[in-house]
Amino acid sequence: MTSPSELRKDPISGRWVIIATERSKRPDEFRADRQPIIRKSSAVLFCPFCRGNEVKTPPEIYAVRGAGAPPDEAGWRVRVVPNKFPALTRGDTPVRNCRGLFESLDGIGVHEVIIESPDHDKELPDLPPDHVRDILSACQSRFRSIEAEPQYGYIQLFKNKGQEAGASLSHPHSQIVATPIIPKRVKEEIYASERHHRRTGDCLFCRTLSEETEAAERVVRANEYFTAVAPFASRFPFETRIFPRRHSPYFSAAGPEEIAGLGEILQSVLTKLKSILDDPPFNIILHQGPHPTRARKVWPEIDRISHWYIEIIPVLTRIAGFEWGTGFYINPVAPEDAARFLRG
Amino acid sequence: MTSPSELRKDPISGRWVIIATERSKRPDEFRADRQPIIRKSSAVLFCPFCRGNEVKTPPEIYAVRGAGAPPDEAGWRVRVVPNKFPALTRGDTPVRNCRGLFESLDGIGVHEVIIESPDHDKELPDLPPDHVRDILSACQSRFRSIEAEPQYGYIQLFKNKGQEAGASLSHPHSQIVATPIIPKRVKEEIYASERHHRRTGDCLFCRTLSEETEAAERVVRANEYFTAVAPFASRFPFETRIFPRRHSPYFSAAGPEEIAGLGEILQSVLTKLKSILDDPPFNIILHQGPHPTRARKVWPEIDRISHWYIEIIPVLTRIAGFEWGTGFYINPVAPEDAARFLRG
Repeated sequence: MTSPSELRKDPISGRWVIIATERSKRPDEFRADRQPIIRKSSAVLFCPFCRGNEVKTPPEIYAVRGAGAPPDEAGWRVRVVPNKFPALTRGDTPVRNCRGLFESLDGIGVHEVIIESPDHDKELPDLPPDHVRDILSACQSRFRSIEAEPQYGYIQLFKNKGQEAGASLSHPHSQIVATPIIPKRVKEEIYASERHHRRTGDCLFCRTLSEETEAAERVVRANEYFTAVAPFASRFPFETRIFPRRHSPYFSAAGPEEIAGLGEILQSVLTKLKSILDDPPFNIILHQGPHPTRARKVWPEIDRISHWYIEIIPVLTRIAGFEWGTGFYINPVAPEDAARFLRG
Repeated sequence: MTSPSELRKDPISGRWVIIATERSKRPDEFRADRQPIIRKSSAVLFCPFCRGNEVKTPPEIYAVRGAGAPPDEAGWRVRVVPNKFPALTRGDTPVRNCRGLFESLDGIGVHEVIIESPDHDKELPDLPPDHVRDILSACQSRFRSIEAEPQYGYIQLFKNKGQEAGASLSHPHSQIVATPIIPKRVKEEIYASERHHRRTGDCLFCRTLSEETEAAERVVRANEYFTAVAPFASRFPFETRIFPRRHSPYFSAAGPEEIAGLGEILQSVLTKLKSILDDPPFNIILHQGPHPTRARKVWPEIDRISHWYIEIIPVLTRIAGFEWGTGFYINPVAPEDAARFLRG
């Protein structure tokens, strides 16, 4: 009897997953039982991110708006504001407190919100390409600014869409959090890439991308600058990674053509996910090396071993006891099938 | 300005969390927006785990039933059956397949279901103490049996209650999965404990328990054999760990008095969680050392550094992009407050 499943190891995170290879679920099997996404009905809910409500957010840090137009008023396309309820707040390098085994730090860091458009109902796939480029450029600008502040360990860009993906406001937005330490998960990717580089002289991410491109069966789509892949060891159905084809450690270093290429592939993948999975909740996560100032001290070869990429996780399954205990994920859709649906 | 949050490091997993220390949420703030738990209405749904439907599961592996009563018929208290839709299936040690960076194994393993009672609506807090002991003893019996099969790397016992915690059937049940490899998460705990042991000669878990007992503010309750704690670096609101007070590497080695003590503290913590959080979905996860055969080869001192414990995670918050990217969790309830509510 052959097994109805396969264990696969992710070369980047070292994490194992269980892929149900035999009885794979179809996209329409995930549509049931979803909670409706709370959308603003102007009669009922007030949205601080909508056009005209600019005074309801903290003062803007950055905006794309008409030349000469005053800040914190209407007339913008993209706004970046501090999070009103931040997980971490700005300050000097925090002191480490230790009492026996218990180690803590003050919650110092950055927490900003990128309001993607003044329209409450326009998601990334609905916006014109130059608007998506403006959003990505706004993120890059904030990254460059935080990269000049040496007290942080990592800068995390992410987007939560839909309640089930952790969004508390439905107006399209992304978030940036800078943490004072380098997260363990980020270090794990660097350690894996460092080991691979020492052994082969290659970048682990470039190598993964070239092997995925050669295997072809998990490639979702590609343009001149990016390739989107359903990873070999996907934890979740329709999980997608978008890799820049040019080796590059940091998102902030992407050129204008790359930003245009990223906008294009992001819109096309999200449009496809929206149509085959009926507008699923999802998370988008940027992965890259630790804050450059700190990274260059710890890993002198950081520019060769770090390689940024984007991860899209549709929220279709639940994390349960088995996942919490083992760190294994059980994925009912083989990535080869996911890629086929996403290409089709 | 003091920061409204604190970063804390878990001494066992090495994972950092962000605790909202200033504006902690109260238990009743989590009651809103929960999906109703699908309960069997005999007119609508058929339940294969209910009394009288024994033929609808694969034949039982183990049961607590009246002496001489035939298997797979009514008259049982606890039944263990193979999972009808297993994530992993029994077989010999699987072969590792490598193509370039892509590593895989056949999905070999064990996947069993512990049906906790013939009653569809009786949860752990509703059962008499001797019934809870029978459930725990059934789990122990299965662990001992799988520990005699050397081809597995880890045995995971877990319980998912409620749809949001990943349960697909609402009849009270737990699951056992044995994996052919030692999960990375399990290794991480052993590595941390090994380092601590090398440095101090102590067991990291015994040490954590003694520091938590001394600090007292996060202790939820204790009996002769167990202490329940809201961990210092809790990822989730009302997360609770139950540690055996006697150092012991494996759950299967717990004696009858310990099993009775575990049943007692488990029922009391679950009863309290049910009342203050209005019957929340939750996961229960057993943590222990790798499969003893394999563990003793890799870590000769495994019996001194491994220490089993139980984790209870109420499902009240969502995992979002920040958590996926960094592995950090943002917890809106300080464990000191959680412990106070759980004690009160």
